[in-house]
Amino acid sequence: MKALSEKEINEKLKNFEGWDYHDGALHTVFEFENFKEAFSAMTRIAFEAERMEHHPEWSNVYNSLEIYLSTHDADGVTEKDFELAEIIDSLVG
Amino acid sequence: MKALSEKEINEKLKNFEGWDYHDGALHTVFEFENFKEAFSAMTRIAFEAERMEHHPEWSNVYNSLEIYLSTHDADGVTEKDFELAEIIDSLVG
Repeated sequence: MKALSEKEINEKLKNFEGWDYHDGALHTVFEFENFKEAFSAMTRIAFEAERMEHHPEWSNVYNSLEIYLSTHDADGVTEKDFELAEIIDSLVG
Repeated sequence: MKALSEKEINEKLKNFEGWDYHDGALHTVFEFENFKEAFSAMTRIAFEAERMEHHPEWSNVYNSLEIYLSTHDADGVTEKDFELAEIIDSLVG
């Protein structure tokens, strides 16, 4: 899996509302109604991430969930990160 | 719920192995065998946090879980944070 160039990343990000390229990763923040909703979303995402063997870097405070996606082995953002971003949007959106 | 002084916090922390006082919060990092183990621990903690209506600030990358506990309303660390820390240790330990 090859790291995408910044140009490729920004081009592909046009199809991802609410995501940006930040600190060498795909990045977004979701706000939920409360903690229970936020953690429920995390649980759905966790199962998909585990299935893909591709895991997010994420942090949660109460109703807020911040996610960074990058590919450690490629030292950058790959197609796999966009694949997970798409799944996350389909689960949360 | 009153914020504890730094002296009180450090005194109480003597009974909490692996926790320190950092950035105005009780702080620890756990390392698990893999993502599934880390997220399983998070799920157990999430249910207790929700029951207590007292939620952690936490972040996860693969097998690592970093936790900060503080009490927003008291603008500091309170007994409630130590209570949650104790529960977390009992769930993870």
